[in-house]
Amino acid sequence: MTATDRDARLDALVDRLPDGMVVTDPDIIEGYRRDRAADPDAGVPLAVVRPTTTEHVRIALRWANEHTIAVVPRGAGTGLSGGASAVEGGIVLTTERMRALAVDPVTRTATVGPGLLNAEVKAAVAEHGLWYPPDPSSFEICSIGGNAATNAGGLCCVKYGMTTDYVLGLEVVLADGTAIRLGGPRLKDSAGLSLTKLFVGSEGTLGVITEVTVRLIPPQPPRSTIVATFESVDAATEAVLAIVREMRPAMLEFMDRTSIRAVESVLNMGLDTTAGALLIAQSDSPGDDRARETTRMTELFTAGGASEVFATDDPADGESFTAARRFAIPAMEKIGPLLLEDVGVPLPALPTLIDGIEQIAERHAVTCAVIAHAGDGNTHPLIVHDPTDPEQTARAQRAFGDIMDLAISLGGTITGEHGVGRLKKAWLPDQVGEDVMELSRRIKSALDPSGILNPGAVL
Amino acid sequence: MTATDRDARLDALVDRLPDGMVVTDPDIIEGYRRDRAADPDAGVPLAVVRPTTTEHVRIALRWANEHTIAVVPRGAGTGLSGGASAVEGGIVLTTERMRALAVDPVTRTATVGPGLLNAEVKAAVAEHGLWYPPDPSSFEICSIGGNAATNAGGLCCVKYGMTTDYVLGLEVVLADGTAIRLGGPRLKDSAGLSLTKLFVGSEGTLGVITEVTVRLIPPQPPRSTIVATFESVDAATEAVLAIVREMRPAMLEFMDRTSIRAVESVLNMGLDTTAGALLIAQSDSPGDDRARETTRMTELFTAGGASEVFATDDPADGESFTAARRFAIPAMEKIGPLLLEDVGVPLPALPTLIDGIEQIAERHAVTCAVIAHAGDGNTHPLIVHDPTDPEQTARAQRAFGDIMDLAISLGGTITGEHGVGRLKKAWLPDQVGEDVMELSRRIKSALDPSGILNPGAVL
Repeated sequence: MTATDRDARLDALVDRLPDGMVVTDPDIIEGYRRDRAADPDAGVPLAVVRPTTTEHVRIALRWANEHTIAVVPRGAGTGLSGGASAVEGGIVLTTERMRALAVDPVTRTATVGPGLLNAEVKAAVAEHGLWYPPDPSSFEICSIGGNAATNAGGLCCVKYGMTTDYVLGLEVVLADGTAIRLGGPRLKDSAGLSLTKLFVGSEGTLGVITEVTVRLIPPQPPRSTIVATFESVDAATEAVLAIVREMRPAMLEFMDRTSIRAVESVLNMGLDTTAGALLIAQSDSPGDDRARETTRMTELFTAGGASEVFATDDPADGESFTAARRFAIPAMEKIGPLLLEDVGVPLPALPTLIDGIEQIAERHAVTCAVIAHAGDGNTHPLIVHDPTDPEQTARAQRAFGDIMDLAISLGGTITGEHGVGRLKKAWLPDQVGEDVMELSRRIKSALDPSGILNPGAVL
Repeated sequence: MTATDRDARLDALVDRLPDGMVVTDPDIIEGYRRDRAADPDAGVPLAVVRPTTTEHVRIALRWANEHTIAVVPRGAGTGLSGGASAVEGGIVLTTERMRALAVDPVTRTATVGPGLLNAEVKAAVAEHGLWYPPDPSSFEICSIGGNAATNAGGLCCVKYGMTTDYVLGLEVVLADGTAIRLGGPRLKDSAGLSLTKLFVGSEGTLGVITEVTVRLIPPQPPRSTIVATFESVDAATEAVLAIVREMRPAMLEFMDRTSIRAVESVLNMGLDTTAGALLIAQSDSPGDDRARETTRMTELFTAGGASEVFATDDPADGESFTAARRFAIPAMEKIGPLLLEDVGVPLPALPTLIDGIEQIAERHAVTCAVIAHAGDGNTHPLIVHDPTDPEQTARAQRAFGDIMDLAISLGGTITGEHGVGRLKKAWLPDQVGEDVMELSRRIKSALDPSGILNPGAVL
């Protein structure tokens, strides 16, 4: 393809969309080439398209389908698996400007544009005394469209579930530009195939999400927070199992020594940097149950060998610990660029997984912090590496792969909540098997026969 | 096809499966031709196949695919939409004998054969102090495989969600006999397309579910029950909206006068047969919240014009009212065969829907009771008709269709929890639109190119 061909085709798109919606300025394009995974293999797109309506998205996809041009849908660009890496010669279609919002307190639903941030949705529904639970650590900067596209998780999933559990309806534009509505503001709907849920977590490979209808629930009750430090990782992970055998915490988070130190070095909040591991648990059970659970968690942590246990009913104190946990990734990024893992296992395998991750890091001589949504078995090993050092990067990559292999061998998943994107694609067949890959490819081909939607991601 | 051809082909299946697994006795076959919808158009199958293992299902499907023979998967045969009507010359594949059961209290999951009854799963997990919430009214006789295949609902959905919200993993045998595993006992898993959720609610059109892994939660807290009678249906439905605007009941059920009378005439439990409508609500909020909600519901019912309000903390009393509500369908069946509706609307449209149903029944001069999972907008109009009276049956059919048209016009669904099956198929395009039908057909073709799986159902 010559530069002239390319421009001529793009002109047809520019002509069909409002002025300024198709961006070709290389400086601006540069900012849209990668999500937070900083994929080194991201291509240079022809253009970034910034639609504000579903009709704009339809025009862009009809055009792309006509010319067989790759379309990479992008939310807020906070993805951690390279699901929004630009494709050479394709377009990046960002939904960040699609920001409609309607809250219906009677049906307890919100219907929102994909570009609204998760935090904006939470705030808008809170004004109606309602709660949208899913809470990725990046909730202040990630978009609801991206959350739906990756089936994002968060800290409260252990009790309140994933994004898919809250998506009741979607508007989606298919590869050929057809806009369809799936589901809607109905708590129950068994009519036809469950296509809504198929699009949730499809990472832009099946269609572009242009509107999301989410289920809302009453506000979370007051929370108590219990923080426990342990000398060893093993004691902490065994304490996690002891807790979940008995109760259902509203949050149960794990930090290892490396992540504790990284956070403390930035926030200076008095975390014990000699601890081997830290657990942060919350109970939001109503009435007396909360006090009972808080007492019981304190007992179980103590019995499990915690060197210190601190419990508080003060929301601000609790939030400061939660914020510390959420800050682990940015804090580790100050040490160096990260390969960010997201492996999960059935809960009984959690101690084995975390032990194994330590051994893998040691074997490959890489710095690897581990944080985890421990209560649901989902861990985030954070492997520090210097991308300008090829030998070190190679070791980090091997550790990254070994960790996924370990999770798979324990009956786990290569991604609990970030999605496969491009960085984890090579491991997906090992997890799900060739038959499931083949089935997934058949569905992909049925929906996007020309393969223009997010090529190179997931499948 | 001659009878000889037919027998020869069946012999090949008989040879490949254990003795007695392929049933051709016409008397036994007769019992497997219809589900509870009593579809008058059900065909006569070649045979009923009763596998006990996944391998048997694989053999049956490979054989069916080889000979392009229709396979109708069947759970316990309690379906209400004709999803398991036998197809002439096909086979009925019943999963009733696949009854494996494993409960894991640490991962809080149960992995069960599709033939286990919902009530059996509930009982087995209760022994581990856990709860499987979905509770179709038929929970004592319906199977977990059928529940997953139809995305079954129930009375507690209003607070606790549908079957799909609890299915973490499936084993499915595809049309070509390939067995695949999707998901598993992991609370979080974002790896690859969300195929697990696609198969939930697919009504046997995409594959045969041979194992289900469900999420469990801690036992339901003690419940209080509030029963209110109203002179008019309108007052009752407005009271429903008043409740859901303020709180999230654990149950909120509606019965109209016809269903109250039908139940009372059998159970003689002292229901007020002069009432226009009855609401049964429950609160299971822990601690003081339960008493507070009970008081507030009583206030709202009274303010809404209830002629009588009765509140009880006694579980047995509460259960007797719930059982009365669950008994409405069998009680109405004593009056005559039913056309059983399952339409749902966004909650604010509930009064309009129920008013409209009354008018439709009047217009077509049919007896129609209405019961509803009112708190989630899902109603079950029960149209009595005499199948031996063609003129009356035609009127009942017209009412059945008009009710679906009304629900669609109110932004609702033709089926909240029973599935489309064969009886509601003609209305599905009106609800979801031709583009979604086309998309669904493309997925169906990709998974079952010969169309052997439950032909004539849903699509």
